[in-house]
Amino acid sequence: MNSPLKVAVLGCGSVGSQVVRLLREQADDLAARIGAPVELAGVAVRRLDGAREVEVPAELLTTDAAALVARDDVDVVIEVIGGIEPARSLILSALEHGASVVTANKALLAEDGATLFEAAEKAGRDLYYEAAVAGAIPILRPLRESLAGDKVTRVLGIVNGTTNFILDKMDTSGAGFGDALEEAQALGYAEADPTADVEGFDAAAKAAILASLAFHSRVTANDVHREGITEVSAGDVRSARDMDSVVKLLAIAELRTDDQGEEAVSVRVHPAMIPRSHPLASVREAYNAVFVESEAAGQLMFYGPGAGGSPTASAVLGDLVTVARNHRQGTRGVGESAYADRAVLPMGETRTRYHVAIDVDDKAGVLAAVALAFAEHGVSIQTVRQEGRGDDAQLVVVSHEATDAALAATVDHLRGMDIVREVTSVMRVEGTEE
Amino acid sequence: MNSPLKVAVLGCGSVGSQVVRLLREQADDLAARIGAPVELAGVAVRRLDGAREVEVPAELLTTDAAALVARDDVDVVIEVIGGIEPARSLILSALEHGASVVTANKALLAEDGATLFEAAEKAGRDLYYEAAVAGAIPILRPLRESLAGDKVTRVLGIVNGTTNFILDKMDTSGAGFGDALEEAQALGYAEADPTADVEGFDAAAKAAILASLAFHSRVTANDVHREGITEVSAGDVRSARDMDSVVKLLAIAELRTDDQGEEAVSVRVHPAMIPRSHPLASVREAYNAVFVESEAAGQLMFYGPGAGGSPTASAVLGDLVTVARNHRQGTRGVGESAYADRAVLPMGETRTRYHVAIDVDDKAGVLAAVALAFAEHGVSIQTVRQEGRGDDAQLVVVSHEATDAALAATVDHLRGMDIVREVTSVMRVEGTEE
Repeated sequence: MNSPLKVAVLGCGSVGSQVVRLLREQADDLAARIGAPVELAGVAVRRLDGAREVEVPAELLTTDAAALVARDDVDVVIEVIGGIEPARSLILSALEHGASVVTANKALLAEDGATLFEAAEKAGRDLYYEAAVAGAIPILRPLRESLAGDKVTRVLGIVNGTTNFILDKMDTSGAGFGDALEEAQALGYAEADPTADVEGFDAAAKAAILASLAFHSRVTANDVHREGITEVSAGDVRSARDMDSVVKLLAIAELRTDDQGEEAVSVRVHPAMIPRSHPLASVREAYNAVFVESEAAGQLMFYGPGAGGSPTASAVLGDLVTVARNHRQGTRGVGESAYADRAVLPMGETRTRYHVAIDVDDKAGVLAAVALAFAEHGVSIQTVRQEGRGDDAQLVVVSHEATDAALAATVDHLRGMDIVREVTSVMRVEGTEE
Repeated sequence: MNSPLKVAVLGCGSVGSQVVRLLREQADDLAARIGAPVELAGVAVRRLDGAREVEVPAELLTTDAAALVARDDVDVVIEVIGGIEPARSLILSALEHGASVVTANKALLAEDGATLFEAAEKAGRDLYYEAAVAGAIPILRPLRESLAGDKVTRVLGIVNGTTNFILDKMDTSGAGFGDALEEAQALGYAEADPTADVEGFDAAAKAAILASLAFHSRVTANDVHREGITEVSAGDVRSARDMDSVVKLLAIAELRTDDQGEEAVSVRVHPAMIPRSHPLASVREAYNAVFVESEAAGQLMFYGPGAGGSPTASAVLGDLVTVARNHRQGTRGVGESAYADRAVLPMGETRTRYHVAIDVDDKAGVLAAVALAFAEHGVSIQTVRQEGRGDDAQLVVVSHEATDAALAATVDHLRGMDIVREVTSVMRVEGTEE
C-alpha cells in the first residue's frame, strides 16, 4: 500500500464531526478510491472541551489551528470553521505550506475567493469547495466540468433551506411569515437569529459562487442584488396560488445583454413567483435544488438536501477524494476559470417581470388608467385580471419583461394614483416563457 | 497560445453533427477552458454523401475511420457511432495509438466495458462516457467523483425517454400501450422498431453502467434483470392512480444483503409503481432523471433531457474538456473503479414489493383465502383494499418486502385458486418506505 495521505480538519462542529466520522467509517473505501490510506493528522477546535462527541483521539485535538496547517506532513486541509477570519488566513497558510484545501466556506469564497484562488494557483495546489453551495448536491463540479463544453445561460437556485421551509409552510398552511418562521425555529430549520437566511445573505453568497462558475467571471457577494423574504405576506402567497404559482426565494444568475450589446451577468436573490409546473416549484420543505439552462444541454435540475452535517460532509469527502488523488499524483484539478471577465449588470438595467396586485376604486376607467400608468413607463402588460366589485375591487397585472427600474417606477406611480387604494402585492415572476 | 489539440470525431449523425457544430461555435470558450485551441482532425462517416448538413470542410471527411484513429497527431477521439463493432475496435486502436477517448456508447460499455477500461489503463489514457447515460444530465461524474467519499446505497433512474413518454401519456390520457406508442412514434419519440426502448434493452445497458459506478464493481448488461413496458395495461395505470401512484420504467441498482450476509448488487429494469409524492413521479414526457440515495448525502436527484443530438453533444464536450486538459498535462482522470467486486444478486433473491389486483368471487371467506395464499409463501401483506361487489368484486393487495421469487410464486398460486377469476394487475412497488 502507498504511504498514507495526511488530512487535517479545521473545525469540529456539525460538519467537521461528520467528516471525522466518515473518514473513519469509510476508511477502506476511501483508501481504495484514493489509492492510499487516509490518516487524520489533527483536528483543530476552539476549545478542547468543546469538541463534539466524535471519537477523535485526544492527542489529535488541538486548539492551535495555525500550527496544524503549517505542518510539513499535512497533505490536505479541510476547512469547516466558516466565516472570514481566521478561516482565510488558515487556508492561505495551508496552501503556502504545500497542502491542498477543501472548504465549505461560502461566505469567504463569495467575499474574497480571488485571493484564495490566486494563492492556490501560485502554490500549484487544489482548492475545492463543492460543499459551499447546496450542501450535498453536486452542483459546482457539474458546472465546472460537466458543462465545460456548453454555454450556461441561466441558473435558478433554491439554495437556502430555511427560507424554502418557511415559504413552503406559508404555501401549504396559509400562515404568515412570522408564524412560519417560528415553526421553522421550533423544528431547528431556522436559527434564533435568522437574519443571514431570511434576509438572503446566505443565498447571495451562493449566488455569487454559482455566477462565477457558470459565467467564468469573478462575481462577489457585493455584486449580488439581494432581497429577503421578511416582506413576503400571506397575501402574496395567496396571490401566487391564484396564478397557479408558488413563491420561492431564488438565487438567479443569468447571462444578459447590456445597453452596448455586450454579454453581462445579472445576479440576484429575491422572492419570485414561479409556476407550479416548473421543476423548482415542487422542491418542498428544507430541500435545495438548482435549475440550470444551457445552450446545448437545455434544462437540467440538481436536487437534494442543502444543509446538515452529514450531507455537507459527503460533499467535503467527494472533494477530498479528488484533491487527494491529484495531490498524490502531483497534478491539479480545474482551477479558477474567470477568463470571460464579464461585467455585472446593475439590477435596474436587468429585465424582469412583475406581478402586481392593486386594490382599486370600482369605477369606470380604472383599468384604462392603470394600463396607461404601465404604458407611460414603457412596460407592456401580459395579463390583467379584474376581481371583486365595490370595496373589494382588485386588479392583478402581470407584465411582460421590462427593466427592473421601469417596473419599480411603475409601481411607485401606481401607489401615487388617486384611484389606487393600495398596492397589495408586488413580486417578480420567473420560470416562465415570455 | 499553446499548440492545438487535435480531435477526431467518429460518426456524424444526430450527435456527431452537433459535436462538430459546438466545436466550431464554442471554439473560443473551449480554447480558454482547455488551455489550447481545439482543431478538428477529421470526421469519419459511413458514406461521404451521407454526412449531415454540418459545415465540415470536405477534406476533413473520411470513410476510413481506422486510419483516422491510428493517426499520430490525433489527441482525442470522440466515438459517437454506437453499437459494438466497429466502435470497439476503433476505440481500442485509438487508445493503443495514444489518443484519449470520449464515447457515448452505452451498449458497448455495458457489454464489454472491462476490455475498454483495461486498454485505457494500459495506454495511460482517459476513457470518458458521460453521454452514455441520461444524455445531457451530469450523472456519471457525480457518481464517480462527487460521491466518491460517500456510500451509495441505491440508484433509481428514469433513463429511457421513449418509455417515459409512453407511460406519461398512458397516465394523463388513459390510453393503452399501443395507442401511446403510436403517438410517440408519430412525434418522433419512438422509432419505427421500438424494441430496444420498450423492451428495456436501452435502460438495461444504462442500469449496468450506473451499477458499476455506484458500487465499484463490474456489472454488465447480462447481469441486469430486464422487463419492458409492453405488458403494462391501461388497467395497471388506473390501478396505480387509485394508489396515488404512477407507473414508471425504472433502472434500479441497489446494494442488498445476500443469504450469507454479504453485500451484493441488485440490478434490474422493470415497470414499477411509485407514489406521486416521489421526486421521480413528476418526471414528465421524454425527460430523464436519476435518483440517488447514499449514506451521508441522503437523497439526490438529477434531472434533464435524456436524449437528443444537442444535449448529448453537451455531455460529450464536457468530457472533451476534461480529457483534453488531462491529455495536455500528461495526466489521467479517474479510471475504472471496480475494487469492491461485489456479486450480482439473482432477481429471485432480491427483496421487492408487489401490488396485486385480483378479480374474485364475491363470497364470504375470499379475503381470508387470499391472505392465506400470501402467508403460505411467507409474504406479509401491508394493505388490502376491497372494491365493488358481485361480478365486479376486486381485491387490491400491496405486500411488504419479500423475495421476488416468493412474490412471483404467490401470484402463480393466486392464479390457480378457484375463487380468483383473474389476476388483473401485478406490478412492483418502489420508492416507498417499508
